[in-house]
Amino acid sequence: MSQLEEKTIKTEKIFSGRVISLQVDDVELPNGKTSKREIVKHPGAVAVIAIKDDNKIVMVEQFRKPLERSLVEIPAGKLEAGEEPINTARRELEEETGYVCDELEWLISFYTSPGFADELIHLYVAKGLKKKENAAQLDEDEFVNLVELTLEEAVQYVGEKKIYDAKTAFAVQYLQLKEALKK
Amino acid sequence: MSQLEEKTIKTEKIFSGRVISLQVDDVELPNGKTSKREIVKHPGAVAVIAIKDDNKIVMVEQFRKPLERSLVEIPAGKLEAGEEPINTARRELEEETGYVCDELEWLISFYTSPGFADELIHLYVAKGLKKKENAAQLDEDEFVNLVELTLEEAVQYVGEKKIYDAKTAFAVQYLQLKEALKK
Repeated sequence: MSQLEEKTIKTEKIFSGRVISLQVDDVELPNGKTSKREIVKHPGAVAVIAIKDDNKIVMVEQFRKPLERSLVEIPAGKLEAGEEPINTARRELEEETGYVCDELEWLISFYTSPGFADELIHLYVAKGLKKKENAAQLDEDEFVNLVELTLEEAVQYVGEKKIYDAKTAFAVQYLQLKEALKK
Repeated sequence: MSQLEEKTIKTEKIFSGRVISLQVDDVELPNGKTSKREIVKHPGAVAVIAIKDDNKIVMVEQFRKPLERSLVEIPAGKLEAGEEPINTARRELEEETGYVCDELEWLISFYTSPGFADELIHLYVAKGLKKKENAAQLDEDEFVNLVELTLEEAVQYVGEKKIYDAKTAFAVQYLQLKEALKK
């Protein structure tokens, strides 16, 4: 493992924004040569596979500026400073969908783009969903449409590229696997 | 769908690197207010679920500078300008693992981090693997260790966070689902 390590020679800070920051590191490679690594720093995020008592999956449609289109995704959001991921999950579920839940369990965490970014997503499964009156509100620059899908519809959305991001594709496959193991 | 759209008012180019570029867009929100979006542009990538005749999965261990650690991942790499994704998949499989394959089929594509980046990964399944003498070489700043795992070992690696990225977690779950559907 250690023979793969790249040692930092120099870090150049390029940009520090509201969500991400960017730096370029000069590194020493395992063979002694040098190279540059472009690195995006991200606070990390959570996402929630929220399953209603009728087995419908709660998702949100959201415009994604980097893609210039909207996607249907499982509810998700960035970690705030000092916030426990499970509390972020609870908060984002309520803000984006208006649902609160009885059960919220960690499923898996993964890096989304380890080649250029340190974003780590923590995935949770929520059950016992209930619509809340006067639910917490979205951030003022967030706009989403609530979408509730059967597993069959979600699989169809993957085929139609309405569902088109890694965490949601993983979530749909997770529910397919759970279904297959039941039989 | 259209009522979610964010119109670009202004684009500020921040950085243009070897792999990614960064821009900040001023946008008009659906409610007429304005906000800023930090956007990373990426050329896109491929990844390959490579399954040997003995059912072992071919992976590579690679140091990931953004995380300051190495991960075990399915073979993957960036699209080069004008290159068909399936050819990138064939090339990266050979360069990173020394294997060529008889069959290479597209499985799914997904965006890795739609909130801040446009990276799209195309996932392929490779079968009929054969080690090639004098296989194509890695880029001169790439260093990887070949790792061949049974599905059981791969699932264990997920639990131990040796496998810890979205595309590889998806790949392992895909193989679990295939296995479950066989029974």
